Amino acid sequence: MRPKLYTEDTIAAIATPPGKGAIGVIKISGDLSLSILKKIFRPFRPRSEFESHKLYYGFIVDPRDEKVIDEVLVVYMKKPKTYTREDVVEIYAHSGYYILRKILELVLMAGARPAEPGEFTLRAYLNGRIDLSQAEAIQELVSAKTETALNLALNTLLGKLSNKINALKNDLLEILVLVESAIDFPEEDIEIMEPEKLSQKIKEKILPVIEELIKNYEEGKIYKEGISLVIAGKPNVGKSSLMNALLKEERAIVTPIPGTTRDFLEEEATIEGLPVKLIDTAGLRETEDIVEKIGVERAKKKFKEADLILFLVDVSEHPSSEDYKIYQEVKNFSHLVILNKIDIQPNHIKEWKEVLLKWGIDEVLEISVKENINLDKLCKKIFEKITSEKGAHVPEVVPNLRQKIALENAKEYLLNALRELEKKDPLPELIAIEIRSAISSLSEIIGEVTTEDLLTQIFSTFCIGK
Amino acid sequence: MRPKLYTEDTIAAIATPPGKGAIGVIKISGDLSLSILKKIFRPFRPRSEFESHKLYYGFIVDPRDEKVIDEVLVVYMKKPKTYTREDVVEIYAHSGYYILRKILELVLMAGARPAEPGEFTLRAYLNGRIDLSQAEAIQELVSAKTETALNLALNTLLGKLSNKINALKNDLLEILVLVESAIDFPEEDIEIMEPEKLSQKIKEKILPVIEELIKNYEEGKIYKEGISLVIAGKPNVGKSSLMNALLKEERAIVTPIPGTTRDFLEEEATIEGLPVKLIDTAGLRETEDIVEKIGVERAKKKFKEADLILFLVDVSEHPSSEDYKIYQEVKNFSHLVILNKIDIQPNHIKEWKEVLLKWGIDEVLEISVKENINLDKLCKKIFEKITSEKGAHVPEVVPNLRQKIALENAKEYLLNALRELEKKDPLPELIAIEIRSAISSLSEIIGEVTTEDLLTQIFSTFCIGK
Repeated sequence: MRPKLYTEDTIAAIATPPGKGAIGVIKISGDLSLSILKKIFRPFRPRSEFESHKLYYGFIVDPRDEKVIDEVLVVYMKKPKTYTREDVVEIYAHSGYYILRKILELVLMAGARPAEPGEFTLRAYLNGRIDLSQAEAIQELVSAKTETALNLALNTLLGKLSNKINALKNDLLEILVLVESAIDFPEEDIEIMEPEKLSQKIKEKILPVIEELIKNYEEGKIYKEGISLVIAGKPNVGKSSLMNALLKEERAIVTPIPGTTRDFLEEEATIEGLPVKLIDTAGLRETEDIVEKIGVERAKKKFKEADLILFLVDVSEHPSSEDYKIYQEVKNFSHLVILNKIDIQPNHIKEWKEVLLKWGIDEVLEISVKENINLDKLCKKIFEKITSEKGAHVPEVVPNLRQKIALENAKEYLLNALRELEKKDPLPELIAIEIRSAISSLSEIIGEVTTEDLLTQIFSTFCIGK
Repeated sequence: MRPKLYTEDTIAAIATPPGKGAIGVIKISGDLSLSILKKIFRPFRPRSEFESHKLYYGFIVDPRDEKVIDEVLVVYMKKPKTYTREDVVEIYAHSGYYILRKILELVLMAGARPAEPGEFTLRAYLNGRIDLSQAEAIQELVSAKTETALNLALNTLLGKLSNKINALKNDLLEILVLVESAIDFPEEDIEIMEPEKLSQKIKEKILPVIEELIKNYEEGKIYKEGISLVIAGKPNVGKSSLMNALLKEERAIVTPIPGTTRDFLEEEATIEGLPVKLIDTAGLRETEDIVEKIGVERAKKKFKEADLILFLVDVSEHPSSEDYKIYQEVKNFSHLVILNKIDIQPNHIKEWKEVLLKWGIDEVLEISVKENINLDKLCKKIFEKITSEKGAHVPEVVPNLRQKIALENAKEYLLNALRELEKKDPLPELIAIEIRSAISSLSEIIGEVTTEDLLTQIFSTFCIGK
């Protein structure tokens, strides 16, 4: 891997998701962009110059034999009014994985190198078009699965987090100036610093904002990252049907998760506006078969990671020891107990309720997946359970984990500064160190202070082409 | 569903594949395109006019509250120099399913209706920019998984099939003129028609071209549509490992197939330039379990549909009745017998070969998936087996099934015409009918004669947004 912070060369990537679609986009950024375009693009009306930001129709050819590869629209965008602040070329081709790969090959042959994940956005950041929190928001925007998540990402992209951080930094800089003048002029009365005033300002104006942002992280997490919902129960109680029913409710925004294994079926859905990863632990049962056993162990692991477990039983059958054993695995985690197949006659709802009461369960939800009874109630119940445990308030600005850690560090430094300020004879040198550290932590959020490692870590989570 | 041939309204769709990517495209076509753009787009530098084919940077907003939804690039393309020959607007947004859906919603609210699959291309066809064979080629281009498939689609898109069809039509029209003058001037000598000359022309100049195109269909099919390759064998012989190894060889162009069920793992790969759908029948075994039995029945169905079955055995174990039973299901279909795990010592290769000989198998391939022994040979073997059965020649122009049927119909009509021409006193009226029918069949290929049903059928296989 080339050093990511090196921006002298020209990078290229397929910028649209793989899969069949109507349009596929190849993105090129860097000084060679235009010359690469000229090598492989033949405009329908021959020309040698391309106006900036103007679309041209024509053909991508292999310059070695002028063989046509695709008919395309292309645009050349002259720096600095571009995504990366560099010269950019975009090729709008017919989609299809093979054709895009072929065009990308020609672009690379003509002088570009393959972009690392997130490298276009990294350049936008390195070239000063956006700050680091905005760069991260772009990734969140792309991943947004609900309106709330989209709004949160947009707020950050439009600079609402950056503004708050910059305001905090300015307040701290004002304090730092006072503290440093106390250092520079030690002969003056130490009261130049006015420790009480500073202390008050930190406590009333600065810390509350930082603490609120940290709280926002916890509250906003479920809206940004979604929750993981595991469906548990013995075979044939209707786990897969329930999963399909929950998916169907919101079919339009279901997308398959690439990593789905054969052990579990995972799919994404939205329940009452919450992004949800649904996991069906089909096949969970006590068994001597070693392969099955691995499956059971993995299912237990899924229970641990779940935000909520839907424990499903079949009331058309009597309670069994198998149900009990699975419930023993489930009960220590957040869960809902669901009686399925209430439409089947005769059923054993009464017996089930008595047995469940003995197991310590007094609240159950009766449903029939097949007859679509109470599925809407179930969705509401899931939402209530999650929000009662994780908070229902949607903050305006929600930092991500990295930003939250930086905020926590800043808070820590400020608490140290406060402790010193509240001493009888506070040492301005010590206070200055803490304030400077707090400023530096806040700067990390918007990327004014970064390391290459950090940038690599952040941008490597991006899609290629972003 | 609205009538697809109605092109007076404005249509819109998400034109990029679902999934995470850097860029997502919304396409709009129709008279309202520009007015819709103006309703929901706020250019960075305010302006009320948009130059055609020029990219503008700005924000998509919800016009009800001016809330920003995304930062985007947009372009307005004035008809007729567009994909559909109508006014077109394209919005290049941050990708991500939710955000694109949100923008599409605003576009629809502003006056567009959702496009049917293929409707943009349908309009390009209805508005005369491309003929029907070219429209179909666009879909083939998008689906192309190999260089050969891409070239075949491009040849058709660039008009090579249309040119051949038009040449045939012209030849037939010349013939028709002669035949019809014989009808119009019956008092003249019937020899105005010169039946022998016409017969010769059809036999030597027209039929061979049609027959070659029909042959091309059969030969090109495996390159265009790919083959289906099933991996069979009892549990733990290494089926999944072989599948992964075959995928890995060509990892770059592997794409998951959405329809993958839990019974089978299906993935697409390329083996020696052939598009291949790999199907792992993991878990195939004789069993009393009803669920497993359904699995076995389905596996047998897969065998029937397969172009080639890879029958895998494990030579580190002795041959078993289970292997034999599976082979009995496999042997009636095209297959290769593969001895796996030859790296394990001691092994039973000798015993296996003797047993296989008794089963009637004298040709086997010895491999080790784990040690990567002979996997390249296996790929070559697969290619040879397929091409020896299906033909190795790659034609320049390959019709699709619909076009092949039209060609067969044309051939049938011409054979009827020939039979009449070779009679002692051929009736020009009858000949004219057959020639006209042949021309009409050929016209169907390029879409000069179509029905709404046919168009619906063709374009409904397209992606939405194409």
